[in-house]
Amino acid sequence: MVRRAREKRLRQGRSGIVTLISDFGLGGEYAGAMKGAILNVNPHCQVVDITHQIAAQDLFQASFVLKNTYLYFPVGTVHLVVVDPGVGTQRKPVALKKEGHFFVGPDNGVFTLILSEGKNEGYEITLGKLFLSPVSSTFHGRDIFGPVAGHLSLGMDPRRLGPRLEEWVRLKGSRPEVKGKQLVGRVLFADAFGNLITNISHGEYRSWIGGQPFQIKGKGWCIDRLQETYQDVQSGGPLALFGSMGLLEIAVNQGSAQLTLGLKPGDSISIKRL
Amino acid sequence: MVRRAREKRLRQGRSGIVTLISDFGLGGEYAGAMKGAILNVNPHCQVVDITHQIAAQDLFQASFVLKNTYLYFPVGTVHLVVVDPGVGTQRKPVALKKEGHFFVGPDNGVFTLILSEGKNEGYEITLGKLFLSPVSSTFHGRDIFGPVAGHLSLGMDPRRLGPRLEEWVRLKGSRPEVKGKQLVGRVLFADAFGNLITNISHGEYRSWIGGQPFQIKGKGWCIDRLQETYQDVQSGGPLALFGSMGLLEIAVNQGSAQLTLGLKPGDSISIKRL
Amino acid sequence: MVRRAREKRLRQGRSGIVTLISDFGLGGEYAGAMKGAILNVNPHCQVVDITHQIAAQDLFQASFVLKNTYLYFPVGTVHLVVVDPGVGTQRKPVALKKEGHFFVGPDNGVFTLILSEGKNEGYEITLGKLFLSPVSSTFHGRDIFGPVAGHLSLGMDPRRLGPRLEEWVRLKGSRPEVKGKQLVGRVLFADAFGNLITNISHGEYRSWIGGQPFQIKGKGWCIDRLQETYQDVQSGGPLALFGSMGLLEIAVNQGSAQLTLGLKPGDSISIKRL
Repeated sequence: MVRRAREKRLRQGRSGIVTLISDFGLGGEYAGAMKGAILNVNPHCQVVDITHQIAAQDLFQASFVLKNTYLYFPVGTVHLVVVDPGVGTQRKPVALKKEGHFFVGPDNGVFTLILSEGKNEGYEITLGKLFLSPVSSTFHGRDIFGPVAGHLSLGMDPRRLGPRLEEWVRLKGSRPEVKGKQLVGRVLFADAFGNLITNISHGEYRSWIGGQPFQIKGKGWCIDRLQETYQDVQSGGPLALFGSMGLLEIAVNQGSAQLTLGLKPGDSISIKRL
Repeated sequence: MVRRAREKRLRQGRSGIVTLISDFGLGGEYAGAMKGAILNVNPHCQVVDITHQIAAQDLFQASFVLKNTYLYFPVGTVHLVVVDPGVGTQRKPVALKKEGHFFVGPDNGVFTLILSEGKNEGYEITLGKLFLSPVSSTFHGRDIFGPVAGHLSLGMDPRRLGPRLEEWVRLKGSRPEVKGKQLVGRVLFADAFGNLITNISHGEYRSWIGGQPFQIKGKGWCIDRLQETYQDVQSGGPLALFGSMGLLEIAVNQGSAQLTLGLKPGDSISIKRL
Repeated sequence: MVRRAREKRLRQGRSGIVTLISDFGLGGEYAGAMKGAILNVNPHCQVVDITHQIAAQDLFQASFVLKNTYLYFPVGTVHLVVVDPGVGTQRKPVALKKEGHFFVGPDNGVFTLILSEGKNEGYEITLGKLFLSPVSSTFHGRDIFGPVAGHLSLGMDPRRLGPRLEEWVRLKGSRPEVKGKQLVGRVLFADAFGNLITNISHGEYRSWIGGQPFQIKGKGWCIDRLQETYQDVQSGGPLALFGSMGLLEIAVNQGSAQLTLGLKPGDSISIKRL
């Protein structure tokens, strides 16, 4: 029975995996209760933590982490994203199907970076019989999104969840801008090593700078070329490279760019064409 | 063979899931070694982190997180709770069966909030052949509780673990008290958003306040009504609501109640009947 | 089909489990993308976090955590260790087979504490068709090590990965030294409780001190005997014991040795023979 059910799910294009992104932190009961709500629907799926340490209510960071992880998982994976400052208000619970992957969360912009320019196959989740009862006004991760993710991992057709969603909430200001001779972006995150990841993609860099000389400058430091690896400069020296996500990264070899260069997430950073 | 074994376990009422609550932190080898000890007994169970960041030796917090997570998991799940300041002393290793769920950990009060008033189906774990050998005096999570959880997840009858436990250690002071015109509780935790969760349940609130006017007061702030959602007050304003766990929660819309109101876990909080 | 594949893997000595040790931290996308790369190859394996909070680039700590966890897992488990300051340079990606367990990571010393004195069955990973394409220069955890771990968990013979590795990079200074009448070791870590774990093993202690009187001294404190449990001294008192890993541990009953004694990881600690 277990075997046949699993084979059926594979035929339905489900991997049996549910990934989790949230800002719940790791100290309390939120992430655990949500995992329970998923596994109660599908005890045979594997729940995989991406992160529960998105900065509180940082929709952009959640969208960025989602964009940079989902495609590495097998087709048929369900990705649950619960960063939900508007929980209990009129924002819609939604599901999205894209490239064989399934996504569940609030329609508050958290999916911005994975939405296509045009139409997206999304659904407002209204099928209340899937929800825990009563639905709390503060924890839809457990009461709505978790159970829905469990059902999707079992092979449920997302069209059954509710009406087609025509318009999505999208975050603004997620792209760098050209100002005179400068391309102005911003630092999105500092990773665990103090490397600073910016919102400037390789495509934007190439179309703005091409092969021309350029300069990235801060207090007491200046970078005027790209490197391939952290070790391409001397120990303690600053460098710029395009990281594994295809985004411009400012780093310090064997050190922390965040501490050494005095830059932090949210700061702007400019590439000047000389 | 695998299939038949799994079907047998389902018939025996086991979900194949083992959840983990501990104060081990995430930086070292403790949580990992305990997971290995579980999976070495049952490589096919799924180990699910609830949290390893219970404050060091905080039995009450562990009990609270357990209470607010276990029921969301499927029946037949094994819940392992290792907050164990008395490891290596005379405190007993115990197992508990309740509502189809199984619990394993030290008998030091950590199960207080899920114990019934009367009898509970508990067992002292004395079946030494299940333990890793030699049993260390400082790490029973790996040497005793992990292997026992693995065996329970395989379908073992908990009565085989040892003699019936007649008396449980229970934590004191876990309920709010009435003092004159006030119901005095305390702040249990601040979650990742700075929301303050108290030990005052909706039932206790209702029987004390009913529909009467009331006041919750602190330095420079006062709350005199309940809200449904965080957005029911203006941005930056304090509010009170009953959260997803049914406990009174003090919050600040779009902010941190912990920082804004100057309250922290352990502080007392009073509802005054006007 | 699923059942037959799993039974075949068990016959090939694989447990279906992949453990993870890294210094990626928990806030970003690195650990999640690596998990995806593993599960994309083998959606049926279980990925188990040991820790992603190794101190940045601390090869010794990673090696220590690996040594103290892997043997608790079932034979046939794949252990992935990605602490990789030299990513993108000439350091080799390698795989190791030992006691029925499989290990994958960079050849930079991270495996030092599990290598045998003599020959070890290791392979340089050169089978490029397993890698994600293109391979980034900064994230081999996702692009090389993750997919290789997935294939090993499916039953792949490690000899297919590339040429036999003859010489391993090994970390230096990982053992305590005798200086006059003192055995000088160092504090490796403070765990979540502030207990200080040193690099002095019980064997080294026994061969140096035997049953003789000894003294471990610091500012304002002195320990002159070993205890069995933390409770063997009065509350707040310092003590020494051999912990669950067989290493000398300095602790304070009901307190934090790190805070109370003013010692931290990296500090040296001496046992003086009286």
